[in-house]
Amino acid sequence: MRRMEALRRIAADRRLDQVLVFDEYDIRSLTGVVCDSACLTLEAIYTDFRYAPMIRRTAPWLKVRDIRRLKVEGRRIGFESSISHERFLKLKAAAGKARFVDIEDEIKFLRTVKTEEEIAGIRAAEELNVAIWNEAKERFRAGMTEREMARIIKMMMVGRGDGEAFETIVCVGANAAECHHRPDDTIWNGRDPVLVDMGVKLAGFCSDLTRNLVPGSVRGLYRKVYRLVEEANRAAIAAVRPGITAAKLDKVARDIIKAGGFGKCFGHSLGHGVGYEIHEAPAVSAKNKEMSLMPGMIITIEPGIYLEGNLGVRIEDLVLVTEDGCEVLSR
Amino acid sequence: MRRMEALRRIAADRRLDQVLVFDEYDIRSLTGVVCDSACLTLEAIYTDFRYAPMIRRTAPWLKVRDIRRLKVEGRRIGFESSISHERFLKLKAAAGKARFVDIEDEIKFLRTVKTEEEIAGIRAAEELNVAIWNEAKERFRAGMTEREMARIIKMMMVGRGDGEAFETIVCVGANAAECHHRPDDTIWNGRDPVLVDMGVKLAGFCSDLTRNLVPGSVRGLYRKVYRLVEEANRAAIAAVRPGITAAKLDKVARDIIKAGGFGKCFGHSLGHGVGYEIHEAPAVSAKNKEMSLMPGMIITIEPGIYLEGNLGVRIEDLVLVTEDGCEVLSR
Repeated sequence: MRRMEALRRIAADRRLDQVLVFDEYDIRSLTGVVCDSACLTLEAIYTDFRYAPMIRRTAPWLKVRDIRRLKVEGRRIGFESSISHERFLKLKAAAGKARFVDIEDEIKFLRTVKTEEEIAGIRAAEELNVAIWNEAKERFRAGMTEREMARIIKMMMVGRGDGEAFETIVCVGANAAECHHRPDDTIWNGRDPVLVDMGVKLAGFCSDLTRNLVPGSVRGLYRKVYRLVEEANRAAIAAVRPGITAAKLDKVARDIIKAGGFGKCFGHSLGHGVGYEIHEAPAVSAKNKEMSLMPGMIITIEPGIYLEGNLGVRIEDLVLVTEDGCEVLSR
Repeated sequence: MRRMEALRRIAADRRLDQVLVFDEYDIRSLTGVVCDSACLTLEAIYTDFRYAPMIRRTAPWLKVRDIRRLKVEGRRIGFESSISHERFLKLKAAAGKARFVDIEDEIKFLRTVKTEEEIAGIRAAEELNVAIWNEAKERFRAGMTEREMARIIKMMMVGRGDGEAFETIVCVGANAAECHHRPDDTIWNGRDPVLVDMGVKLAGFCSDLTRNLVPGSVRGLYRKVYRLVEEANRAAIAAVRPGITAAKLDKVARDIIKAGGFGKCFGHSLGHGVGYEIHEAPAVSAKNKEMSLMPGMIITIEPGIYLEGNLGVRIEDLVLVTEDGCEVLSR
């Protein structure tokens, strides 16, 4: 419950009379409670009759109150701006003259550094993810559609884990240029490369991995692009250490891709945090100049090059920031 | 594209200079485009490079523009209040003195009446859902945990459909009193009833069904409660017809449960719309006094009785409102 203490400190520092946390993953990270319809304050958790018995059973040390009795009191109220605008308007109407203070980033920051239990959970999820990938790719056959290949992966994810952390991406050939391609009926001819971006969920923890199946028959341009992305991925992993800013880490990979002549074809950021959610803070992007890596953070390193209508390569590993560098969880 | 025309009419009626639709399911229902990171206006769809190629390919008649070029112009701007408060603040900052007009309900209303294609899609999803339930329950064995039973269902959902429309609920015995219970390690002794609430997704369409496996050994109180819920379910289905308000339909079931002495144990509303999302308008609840059923709406009828620490029964069918009543899709 160290994070609850940290939340109390934030409330004191920002002179907040009350804090309202609605996000289910923030509630989980703060209390361990799994509930997608609740409001956590500094004193209690508010929910309705559908969830109250479960919370009382799983977190007997928490005060559980009826959500209908949630009062928005005090002059300064901390909240998360990720709530819907509709909910905000209701809170505001109930709050009289209270001032709402956005503490979204502070709350999200609390879970950037994982607990030992969370690290073990994410490690286990990524191990399973890699095992599923290794088995799945052996079952891919020329003549299968993207959808069929995705299904092989999804079946294993449900059979051995808790299903997908996000919609599995399988891209044959030029489809890989669409970096959020949805598996469709494109048939794999056995000669084109296949990009797979996948994450199994296990005990509430997400994992993330992108691999490319590269048959011997692929063209020279593809090989060139692949080697460049691989180089960017390796250099970035080598640069991970406590203290480096997210923006600087992004630059390590981006500079290599730029120098290779494909700077404009790497349109997304280098990576993101992973935990209870597939995308968490810290954003490993050029914009994130303030946030420095700290031991216990878990982030993806996923440089990519996309040539529309032609090809796409992304190589993604999940890494745990350690005291003196990082541990790659995607083995 | 009739819904786009309806959206234009809403914009004209409310004297809107611009409309911003961010919700992915509203975008799908308005245009057919599947994209979870876009903004649809009356003139174009705005997205980023990750999705643009896919939209250009699947909806060539739509103008696709760079989301960074989205300008919030005009004096009156229609928007959906389901967007995050953070996004609202950004739009407001970009909009100068423009007034924001919440048209969430009007947009959601546009998809309460399903198209022929949507009806066919939801019908197929629910047929598959029922088939999976019928097969799954035959595989349930005494000694299995809730998690194991849920996994049997999930595997079939991924194998034959596109996976779960929502987290499958499996409740053994008293766990059914928690109406949003998460399957855990509770072991089924083969004598307690098992409640299962499940929905497979198929081609983007959701389905929904709640059934109870009732061994011959269950107690008299359970039988009494079950019969009452069944009576409420049947009476409500018999009352479905165009013109009845959602509130009146809710009352049909609620009155029966009240008369049976369990009025306080039916804490949720009677049902909800189902389509691209598992919960859509119309809410079939006591509060929804204005909305009348119309042919082409698809709603759940799911009365329930919950006695904490003791038992729970819910019987849920999916029905299509027809010209003179309804068709039960959960056969």
